[in-house]
Amino acid sequence: MNPYTIFAEIIAGNAESSLVYSDDVAVAFMDIRPVTRGHVLVVPRTQARSLAELEPDVGAHLFVVGQKVAAALRATNPRIAGVNFFLADGEVAGQEIFHVHLHVIPRTVGDGFGLRARPTSPQRSELDAQAGDISRALGTAGR
Amino acid sequence: MNPYTIFAEIIAGNAESSLVYSDDVAVAFMDIRPVTRGHVLVVPRTQARSLAELEPDVGAHLFVVGQKVAAALRATNPRIAGVNFFLADGEVAGQEIFHVHLHVIPRTVGDGFGLRARPTSPQRSELDAQAGDISRALGTAGR
Repeated sequence: MNPYTIFAEIIAGNAESSLVYSDDVAVAFMDIRPVTRGHVLVVPRTQARSLAELEPDVGAHLFVVGQKVAAALRATNPRIAGVNFFLADGEVAGQEIFHVHLHVIPRTVGDGFGLRARPTSPQRSELDAQAGDISRALGTAGR
Repeated sequence: MNPYTIFAEIIAGNAESSLVYSDDVAVAFMDIRPVTRGHVLVVPRTQARSLAELEPDVGAHLFVVGQKVAAALRATNPRIAGVNFFLADGEVAGQEIFHVHLHVIPRTVGDGFGLRARPTSPQRSELDAQAGDISRALGTAGR
């Protein structure tokens, strides 16, 4: 199986992209299927299919580059009054390209983008039980 | 105006939460309005209303804690086959609590969560023009 994705091809300079930012660890370029005008992807240079494969230092850097891109997006257009970060890890989460990427999505009033979500209001006891489970898993696998 | 939010109250120990994780820089606790079962918030201890106010080192740390929480969520339940990160910066982006927070949302098949989005397919020339604008703004404001 070819582990390469279109992002690896872009990073290698073998595929076209509209580059926004580049450093030793990450690049940022325009999403070719933007959900709003100015939608940018921040992508690590290293091949990592998932959050589990991604070095924490590299993940950390994606967030920092995302902050810079968010500030730059706001600077390009006074109508951009907000930004969303979005990341999909796993097919069930909507991941389509199996090379980790952080979406930086500029927001303007009435742009139509948003979440499809029906929040619930669990009992505190239920939340505490879930927190206990996650906390124990962090202790075992996390640090 | 009181700059305090409910998150500051939680961090100060003055409000109830179901704590998942804590270190010197950040805490993680259960969202009381989860969009899926197990929805966690990763929150910096320092008061920062927005990405622009957030120290990059702290932002970086949020991502790293998010990775740990994502791994722990998957470990708690084999049905959790994916995770989304989501962050809302600004009211138009859906931010409700003005203390930066990273949503870590576990995903299972058929959970009903997702994006409300209509992607477009701009011409390459249009994407290049946008990339130029953002890149120039990064050069001016970013580094």
